[in-house]
Amino acid sequence: MGRVVVDVMPKPEILDPQGKAVAAALPRLGFHGFTGVRQGKRFELEVDGEVTDEVLAQVREAASTLLSNPVIEDVVRVARAEEHDGAAAEAVSA
Amino acid sequence: MGRVVVDVMPKPEILDPQGKAVAAALPRLGFHGFTGVRQGKRFELEVDGEVTDEVLAQVREAASTLLSNPVIEDVVRVARAEEHDGAAAEAVSA
Repeated sequence: MGRVVVDVMPKPEILDPQGKAVAAALPRLGFHGFTGVRQGKRFELEVDGEVTDEVLAQVREAASTLLSNPVIEDVVRVARAEEHDGAAAEAVSA
Repeated sequence: MGRVVVDVMPKPEILDPQGKAVAAALPRLGFHGFTGVRQGKRFELEVDGEVTDEVLAQVREAASTLLSNPVIEDVVRVARAEEHDGAAAEAVSA
């Protein structure tokens, strides 16, 4: 069972109200020194079998048609999940 | 100007309707061999200056209080943005 991670971000020229809201909230909560925040999406696709190059090509195709809206979003990463990409494997404790 | 990436995913035991919708749509669109999809969030924080360990500690704190809901979500990654994490730097062309 492999896993592929797809990261999708709003294009730089697109307004990102969610990111703006986070950026405005940071200093209110005492977090300073940040000049901007962008919020995008992260998908984890479980693959039935090995993550071959064909699977990655399929995921790239799916990323640009189903997982993102190419008018307003960029697919910034399509990659085999590494160890640290496992949600359960390494949840960052704060 | 540094950049920090924060990845947030729904906890494994939490139902993820967006991921389920994507998983159901994949075979309808001709993408087979996927057994599950989870959808989470990805944040890119622009830092005013270097990404030091103190900045990363601040981001970790922000990630667990503002960027995620610890009841239903896990912060799966807090990391300096690598080259391929730049939205503009490498938009994956499909």
